[in-house]
Amino acid sequence: MTPYPPAPLAVSLGDPAGIGAEVLAKCWDNRGRFELPPFVAIGDPRAISAVWDGPLAIIDDPQEADPAFDVGLPVIQLAAAEDDVLPGHPSVAGAHCSLDSLEIAVGLARSGSAAGVVTGPVSKEQLYGIGFSHPGQTEFVAERCGVASSNVAMMLAGPTLRTVPVTTHLPLAKAIGALTTALIESRARAALRGLQRNFGIEDPRLAVAALNPHAGEGGALGREEIEIIEPAIAALCAEGWRVTGPHPADTMFHTSARAKYDAALCMYHDQALIPLKALHFEEGVNVTLGLPIVRTAPDHGTAFNIAGQDRADPRAMAAAIRLAAQCGAQRAPAT
Amino acid sequence: MTPYPPAPLAVSLGDPAGIGAEVLAKCWDNRGRFELPPFVAIGDPRAISAVWDGPLAIIDDPQEADPAFDVGLPVIQLAAAEDDVLPGHPSVAGAHCSLDSLEIAVGLARSGSAAGVVTGPVSKEQLYGIGFSHPGQTEFVAERCGVASSNVAMMLAGPTLRTVPVTTHLPLAKAIGALTTALIESRARAALRGLQRNFGIEDPRLAVAALNPHAGEGGALGREEIEIIEPAIAALCAEGWRVTGPHPADTMFHTSARAKYDAALCMYHDQALIPLKALHFEEGVNVTLGLPIVRTAPDHGTAFNIAGQDRADPRAMAAAIRLAAQCGAQRAPAT
Repeated sequence: MTPYPPAPLAVSLGDPAGIGAEVLAKCWDNRGRFELPPFVAIGDPRAISAVWDGPLAIIDDPQEADPAFDVGLPVIQLAAAEDDVLPGHPSVAGAHCSLDSLEIAVGLARSGSAAGVVTGPVSKEQLYGIGFSHPGQTEFVAERCGVASSNVAMMLAGPTLRTVPVTTHLPLAKAIGALTTALIESRARAALRGLQRNFGIEDPRLAVAALNPHAGEGGALGREEIEIIEPAIAALCAEGWRVTGPHPADTMFHTSARAKYDAALCMYHDQALIPLKALHFEEGVNVTLGLPIVRTAPDHGTAFNIAGQDRADPRAMAAAIRLAAQCGAQRAPAT
Repeated sequence: MTPYPPAPLAVSLGDPAGIGAEVLAKCWDNRGRFELPPFVAIGDPRAISAVWDGPLAIIDDPQEADPAFDVGLPVIQLAAAEDDVLPGHPSVAGAHCSLDSLEIAVGLARSGSAAGVVTGPVSKEQLYGIGFSHPGQTEFVAERCGVASSNVAMMLAGPTLRTVPVTTHLPLAKAIGALTTALIESRARAALRGLQRNFGIEDPRLAVAALNPHAGEGGALGREEIEIIEPAIAALCAEGWRVTGPHPADTMFHTSARAKYDAALCMYHDQALIPLKALHFEEGVNVTLGLPIVRTAPDHGTAFNIAGQDRADPRAMAAAIRLAAQCGAQRAPAT
C-alpha cells in the first residue's frame, strides 16, 4: 500500500552555523526549477531565518509536509538552545543541534514517516568536541540502522560518473595498508547491490581501479594489483557479477571510458573524489549504499567561511534531494 | 640571428610497431586544420608506409624539411633493419629502431638543427629488453642533455590544466616514502621556471596538492602535509615564488579552482594524471621542463593492440607538436 499523502524526504539541516540552512532554503525557493519533491527540514528554524526571509511552515508530523510545501518551507522544530544562531560561528549548542537533527531525520526514515534522509553538512571537529565517536555521519547512520559499517559503501554520484571508495578517511599510507581482498569484495558487493536497488540497474557493471601507476605494470610498479585486487575481481566474477579491472586509474575517467561502467570502485578517497569533483563539482551527491533506508548528502562541507553571505550554491543539495527521491522510487515495492 | 629556413621540429617515431607512425601521418594529413608547423619524422619510413599510403619526402638534413613539407611527410631515414615492420608486433629490431630514432632526434635538437623534439611512444618493456636502463624517455633525454634527472620535471599539459607530478613511476607506497621537502622544492622550481621559460608566464602561480584526504585535516589524516609539504611551500614563498597549498586534492581541479593557478604540483603519478586525463584525454601533452631543449610528447602509449587498424586518434600528437612549437617560440631569443 502506498502511504497517502506520500512521505516527504527528511533533510537534516546540519550545523546551524554552516551553509546547510541556506542551501536548503534556496532549494525550496527553486523547487519548481530544480524539480524537487516535498521535503521537510529537521533542525532549528532560527538557523534558516538567520539567512533567509522566506516563509517557514512549522509542522509537527512529516505527513503535514506535503500540503504545507506550497505555502512555506516545512520545518520540524528541535528543542532550541538558548544561544542565538550566528552563521559562520560554530558553537557547542550548534553541534548538539546538528546531531539531534541527524538522529531525528534517520528515525523518521527508519519508521517510514520519511521516504529517506538527506543530511546537511556537519563539522566533524565540532561533533568530536561533544563526544561523537563515529568517523562521520555515514557510520552514525549505519549504526542507527543496525548495519556494520564494513557492509556499507559511500558512493559519490554525479551526472556522468559514480565512484565508490574502498577506503575513505585514512592517511594515504594507511589506506594502502588497509586494502584487503575481503574489504574490496565487500565494498564491491555493496556497490553492485546498491546499483541494483537504488538505481534500478539489473546487471550492473563495476570497473575496479588499480592502486599503482599503470596498474602496477605486471608487478614492476607494485604488487597490490596481483596480490590483493585481482583475487577480489576473480571472486566477484565467479559469483556472476560483471566486474572488470584492475584498470589504470588515469585512463578510467574520460568520456568514452566512463560509458563502459555503471560505477568505479576506487582504492582510496582522492582516487574517487578527484575525478568526481573535477567533472561534477557543483552537483556531487554522496549516497550511502547498503542501508535499509535511502540516505544521500550534498558532497560539500559546512563552509563556515561563507555562511550567512548568500554565496552558497544550492545545486549539490538539490541534486541530493532529487537523487534521494529517485532512489526511494526505485526501492518502493511495487503496489 | 634566426636561422633560415626556420628549423623544423624533430619527431621520433617511437616503436615502429606502435601507433606513432599512424598518428604522425594523420598529423601531416591534417597539418592545416591542426595548424602545425613544419616537422620531420625520424625513424624507419617502412613503419609509416605500413599504415599510410600518403607521400613521404625522404630527406637527409632537417633544413630540407621546410621546403619538402608541402610535398610529403619529411622523414630522416634510419639505417633500417632487415626485418619487416609489422604493426602491433613489437620486435627487438623495432626496439633498437625506436632508441636510435630518439637519440638522433635529441641530437638534432641539441645542435640547433631542430627547433625541439617531440617523442613518439615507445615500449619500456621492449627497451628494457635491449639494455635500456632509464626509467623512461624523459630521463634518457635529460642525460643526453647533461641534466640531472632530479632537476627535470614532467608536466602534463591540456587546454585548461597543467600538472607536474613530484614522483612518477613508483609503486604508490614507495612514492609516499620518496617524498621529501627537498624533492618537492626541486620539482616546484623546475615547474615555476618552466612556466616562465616555455609558457612566457612571468610570475607563475603554482598550487601544491596535499597527499592525504582533506589535506590531512591538521594532522588527523596524516602528517606529511605538516612535516614535508608545508616547509617546502614556505621555502619557495620565501624565495618570492607565488606558491599556495597544500590544497585538498579533490577540490583543486574543477573549473573555478583551475582558474587560480598556472600549474598544479602533484605528489604522485595518478594525482596528476587522473584529473588531466579526465578533462583532456585526447589532447594531453607531456612536456619536459628543466632541459636546454624543447621536448614534448603525446600523453599516450604505443597502443600495440590497435596499431595498423587506422583507429588511432592523432589529436594528442598534434597537440604535442603545436605545444613544442609554442614553447620553442617562447624560448627563442629576441632578435
